[in-house]
Amino acid sequence: MNSIETARWLSERDNFLIITHRRPDGDTLGCAAGLVQGLKEAGKTAFILFNSEATARYLPYVQKHWAPDGYKPSYIIAVDIASPGLFPGNWQSDGSDIALCIDHHPSNTGYAQATCLDIEKASCGEIIYEILSALSGRISAITAAALYVAVSTDTGCFAYSNTNAGAHHVAGALVDAGAPIGEINKAIFRTKAKSRILIEAMIITGMEFYYDGAVAIATITCDMMKNAGASENEMDDIAAISNSIEGVIAGITIRELTGPGDCKVSIRTTPLVNANLLASKFGGGGHVTASGFSLNASAEG
Amino acid sequence: MNSIETARWLSERDNFLIITHRRPDGDTLGCAAGLVQGLKEAGKTAFILFNSEATARYLPYVQKHWAPDGYKPSYIIAVDIASPGLFPGNWQSDGSDIALCIDHHPSNTGYAQATCLDIEKASCGEIIYEILSALSGRISAITAAALYVAVSTDTGCFAYSNTNAGAHHVAGALVDAGAPIGEINKAIFRTKAKSRILIEAMIITGMEFYYDGAVAIATITCDMMKNAGASENEMDDIAAISNSIEGVIAGITIRELTGPGDCKVSIRTTPLVNANLLASKFGGGGHVTASGFSLNASAEG
Repeated sequence: MNSIETARWLSERDNFLIITHRRPDGDTLGCAAGLVQGLKEAGKTAFILFNSEATARYLPYVQKHWAPDGYKPSYIIAVDIASPGLFPGNWQSDGSDIALCIDHHPSNTGYAQATCLDIEKASCGEIIYEILSALSGRISAITAAALYVAVSTDTGCFAYSNTNAGAHHVAGALVDAGAPIGEINKAIFRTKAKSRILIEAMIITGMEFYYDGAVAIATITCDMMKNAGASENEMDDIAAISNSIEGVIAGITIRELTGPGDCKVSIRTTPLVNANLLASKFGGGGHVTASGFSLNASAEG
Repeated sequence: MNSIETARWLSERDNFLIITHRRPDGDTLGCAAGLVQGLKEAGKTAFILFNSEATARYLPYVQKHWAPDGYKPSYIIAVDIASPGLFPGNWQSDGSDIALCIDHHPSNTGYAQATCLDIEKASCGEIIYEILSALSGRISAITAAALYVAVSTDTGCFAYSNTNAGAHHVAGALVDAGAPIGEINKAIFRTKAKSRILIEAMIITGMEFYYDGAVAIATITCDMMKNAGASENEMDDIAAISNSIEGVIAGITIRELTGPGDCKVSIRTTPLVNANLLASKFGGGGHVTASGFSLNASAEG
């Protein structure tokens, strides 16, 4: 279904439960918050399935919409979930019980009874924006805030390579609708956890450079994480640091997982260097500019 | 003049020289590059006055348009320059020789013979976009790239508090026109100089926290800069680091300028704390959330 058909589908039904994916990011949570808010404003009953992994940053958008105990929905809607394997721990199914899936991932398996898929969109939030615009002709400031969270996080505040014209056009429309982007940007993009900023400093301080600065090797040990007070939550995209330095064409990050002898190696490159080819020599793989492999050796020395 | 009137003004004239401000940023240089490109595509003769302070990052956009020796322009245009005091070293005047000034700063002194000022715009680049759209009805991909540099840098890639709906709408239009934003974002927003990343790590490593992490004090000595290989070029907005940490409501950065005993103290706060009031107690001042003062004492201890 396209956005218009999906809006009609929603308008003809009621009593929805929206589910978000495991390890939820700003896109799935912002989509759920925006959709539930828009549906309620359209006079519908809708809630979000509790997701125990939602982080503090996004809780204000979703927790007020958690489904109460005993809520019996008529239709289950999955947002930004490419496959049943990504369902949260409290919703284990093969996906055939999902009445509608709204998604932008090319890898969507088509598990739901109906699917609104648009792989041209940088974020799923842009699809929800189209659907709600068609459903009620307007977007409230509260809905706009949630959808801005979705669009801005999935595009890395419009800096990631997936950012396109549509993402900017929708962002502009959301600001017009009253999304408080100053506050949101400060909280999400201009603030880092103390433990994250400390582990980053440790990684950079210990970084080694080779071939006139073209290759950077970063090492992350369990001890470093302990000293920085960093948990897995703060390690998101940490391997990108080595490759964000001017002149580096191959950034290699060696990270201890459980302790010495159990390491993950991440390779991030510019398109000049094939990271996948390098990783495959060590039994790993991935993409041309982002690959990895496992290493049973000490991270240090 | 508004954008439409400015487009007409340009269409009726020819032989332009565009000047950019001292310590030029992405907005002034992107504006100059976009305007000169758009004028050339409209059949006009136009060049940019050489600016010796243009940094490597922005040179590719402007250096191909530097005015040749002996070029005799009929009209001088200043872009993104609020006052004659900001003219570059090779253009010293009281501003009365400037035929047209295009700007978005509320502090614009009105020095030019004609002024196109729009203080609602987040960047001057958005005004140039409007003018060129009115002048020729279309924006080429080369012009769009330069104007995207202007818009994106002045909004901190759409994360600064000045970002508004118009900035996103123009960015969307520039992408539609062919601006290669993936490349530009990677080069400008997802790459840091090695010396910058090293000095940041040193600052964070040495940072002290007080009042349960509500106050952060960062110290930057000349020795640290020397060890990181950092020059003044890499110190842009360095005081923002302390205030970008979760939980910090007042970030204080003490920075040695020439050596021990000659320090600048920068205070960055959330609106909860009045930085201006604090700085004024030490003979300084500024804004509510960003202030500073001079300190004749050692940065350390």
